[in-house]
Amino acid sequence: MSKNNLEVMRKKLKKNLDSYRYHHTLGVMYTAASLAMCYGMDIIQAETAGLLHDCAKCYTDEEQLALCYKYNIEVTEAEQKSPYLLHAKLGAYFASRSYGVSDQEILDAIRYHTTGRPGMTDLEKVIYLADYIEPMRDKASNLKRIRRLAFVSLDEAMYSVLKDTLHYLENSPKSVDPATEEAYEYYAKKLYEKE
Amino acid sequence: MSKNNLEVMRKKLKKNLDSYRYHHTLGVMYTAASLAMCYGMDIIQAETAGLLHDCAKCYTDEEQLALCYKYNIEVTEAEQKSPYLLHAKLGAYFASRSYGVSDQEILDAIRYHTTGRPGMTDLEKVIYLADYIEPMRDKASNLKRIRRLAFVSLDEAMYSVLKDTLHYLENSPKSVDPATEEAYEYYAKKLYEKE
Repeated sequence: MSKNNLEVMRKKLKKNLDSYRYHHTLGVMYTAASLAMCYGMDIIQAETAGLLHDCAKCYTDEEQLALCYKYNIEVTEAEQKSPYLLHAKLGAYFASRSYGVSDQEILDAIRYHTTGRPGMTDLEKVIYLADYIEPMRDKASNLKRIRRLAFVSLDEAMYSVLKDTLHYLENSPKSVDPATEEAYEYYAKKLYEKE
Repeated sequence: MSKNNLEVMRKKLKKNLDSYRYHHTLGVMYTAASLAMCYGMDIIQAETAGLLHDCAKCYTDEEQLALCYKYNIEVTEAEQKSPYLLHAKLGAYFASRSYGVSDQEILDAIRYHTTGRPGMTDLEKVIYLADYIEPMRDKASNLKRIRRLAFVSLDEAMYSVLKDTLHYLENSPKSVDPATEEAYEYYAKKLYEKE
């Protein structure tokens, strides 16, 4: 993946997303790049995953369900109840099929950017966190603390965001994906139950 | 300054800059936002300064000199030898006059983004460093180390960039602005000559 590829993908993606989603996407791409700088990771890999993380968000929930059936992509019970979750795995599919991404680490970072999962790679954490903290975001609680924490410890920031997300979903009609609960338990144990 | 103001300024600026400069500008704006997150600073202030830091780069060196004379902006000896330095103080002038920025901290961050100066504010350091490390940059030496350092210590990163810049300018026809030498000496003393 090179800077030239990234520019080609950016132009293509811009045509498919509405203005709000495109600007959110740029925020995630650049915030992921900064997190990659901070942790000494590959910047273009982070930018690519950030750029494409919402590439399937141009479809409605119904269209996403239909596309999953069309392409034989498994739809879980949680996803049937909350089809907006599907844009992540469908995004990974389109990143590979329509944008030519073959790097499995990038595809996984797109796939797990909404739910998280236990034992995430640093790239997966970077995209999950960049999606949560990018400059246009303003609704989540503890945002100033979490933005700072993301540049101190990816695991501590993951723990905090997963905890806040589960708390938020307790009072929401959206159902919780089991992967989010498993991810929270994983990072709680990793950080605080070592003894 | 609000998100809405920022969006109005972004659209206006896009019309005045070529594609390369505009994308560099977005890189600086978002990298400055991430540095602001990391250090618990005001994000919109950092984005605004980052967005406008090169707003006078649409003019040639000759035009910049002429504009300084027209608007009674002082031109130093170093700036007469290297008129590209003028885009910083001229940028601060246009940020105020054409983009409606009245926040003196933002105007100073634009003004000192190329030379640095002793005793910089955190916002000035953030814009100076974001300009050096944004994702499109690839020519400076030690870039991976400095990118990481910028998220650890603004002063340590300033020291390293100023040192590398003076070393680079030793072998360059561009003349060194005295402010850069003074800034280097200031941070060298602040960090390593306390005893």
